[in-house]
Amino acid sequence: MDVETSLEWLGGFRFKGVAGGREIALDGHRESGVSPTEALTLALGGCMAIDLVAILEKRRAALRSMRVEIEGTRAETEPRRFTEIRMSFRVAGTGFTASHVERAIELSREKYCSVLHTLRPDLRLETTFAIEI
Amino acid sequence: MDVETSLEWLGGFRFKGVAGGREIALDGHRESGVSPTEALTLALGGCMAIDLVAILEKRRAALRSMRVEIEGTRAETEPRRFTEIRMSFRVAGTGFTASHVERAIELSREKYCSVLHTLRPDLRLETTFAIEI
Repeated sequence: MDVETSLEWLGGFRFKGVAGGREIALDGHRESGVSPTEALTLALGGCMAIDLVAILEKRRAALRSMRVEIEGTRAETEPRRFTEIRMSFRVAGTGFTASHVERAIELSREKYCSVLHTLRPDLRLETTFAIEI
Repeated sequence: MDVETSLEWLGGFRFKGVAGGREIALDGHRESGVSPTEALTLALGGCMAIDLVAILEKRRAALRSMRVEIEGTRAETEPRRFTEIRMSFRVAGTGFTASHVERAIELSREKYCSVLHTLRPDLRLETTFAIEI
C-alpha cells in the first residue's frame, strides 16, 4: 500500500490527523484546525505547487518565492461537493519565462498531479499565474 | 465563494498551508509535514468521521472515542492517482448499535460527505468498522 494515515477524534468536530510522525489539526468548525474541505484544497494546491517547483527547477530556474491563492465553490445542496476551484500562482525568481510557468502548470494538470487526477473529471479548475522575474 | 486557502513556499517541497488563521505543514518529501496525497486521505477521513460524529450524536449516542485508519493505493504510472482507499473506523461509546454505525457510514458515503463526492466516481472506497459499546 502506498499511503497510510490515521485520525483520532478529540471531541466536537476536532481530529488529529497523523501521517508517519507528522500531524495536522482538522476541525469541522474551523476553530482549532482546518476543515476537511479546506484541507482538500490545500492538498490539491500543494500537489500542483510541488510539480511547479520540480519542473521549473529541473529547467534550472532559480525560484525565490511562490504563493498560491485558492478559492473553491461548493454545490448548494448536499453532498456539498466542489463544483469549481480557482487557483492563482505567484512565482518570483530568475531563469524562467511566463511560457515556462504556463507549461509547468499544463504538465501538472495533464500529466503529473496525483491529487487532481483523483478528483472528478467534471470539476472545473481555473489556473492563473503572475511572475516577478 | 465558499472556501479560501493559500500556500506559501518554504523551499524544497515544503509549503505552509493557511486557511483563515489556521495552518498545516505540507512537505512532498514527508519530512517536515504531510504530503499532499496524505493530506487528501486525511481530508476524506476527516469529512466522513465528522459525518459519523454528527449522525450518531443526533441519535443521542454518547461517543467516547473514534479512530480512523486509512490506507490508499495509487496507480503505478503518472499521474499516480488513488485507485483505492480503505478506511477502517473504530468507535467506542454507549447508546448506539452496529447498525447505527453502518447506517451513518452509508449516509456519509451516499449523501453527506463533500470531500468524497468531489473525488472520481470510479475510486474504489472500502469502509469497515468495529465498535466497543
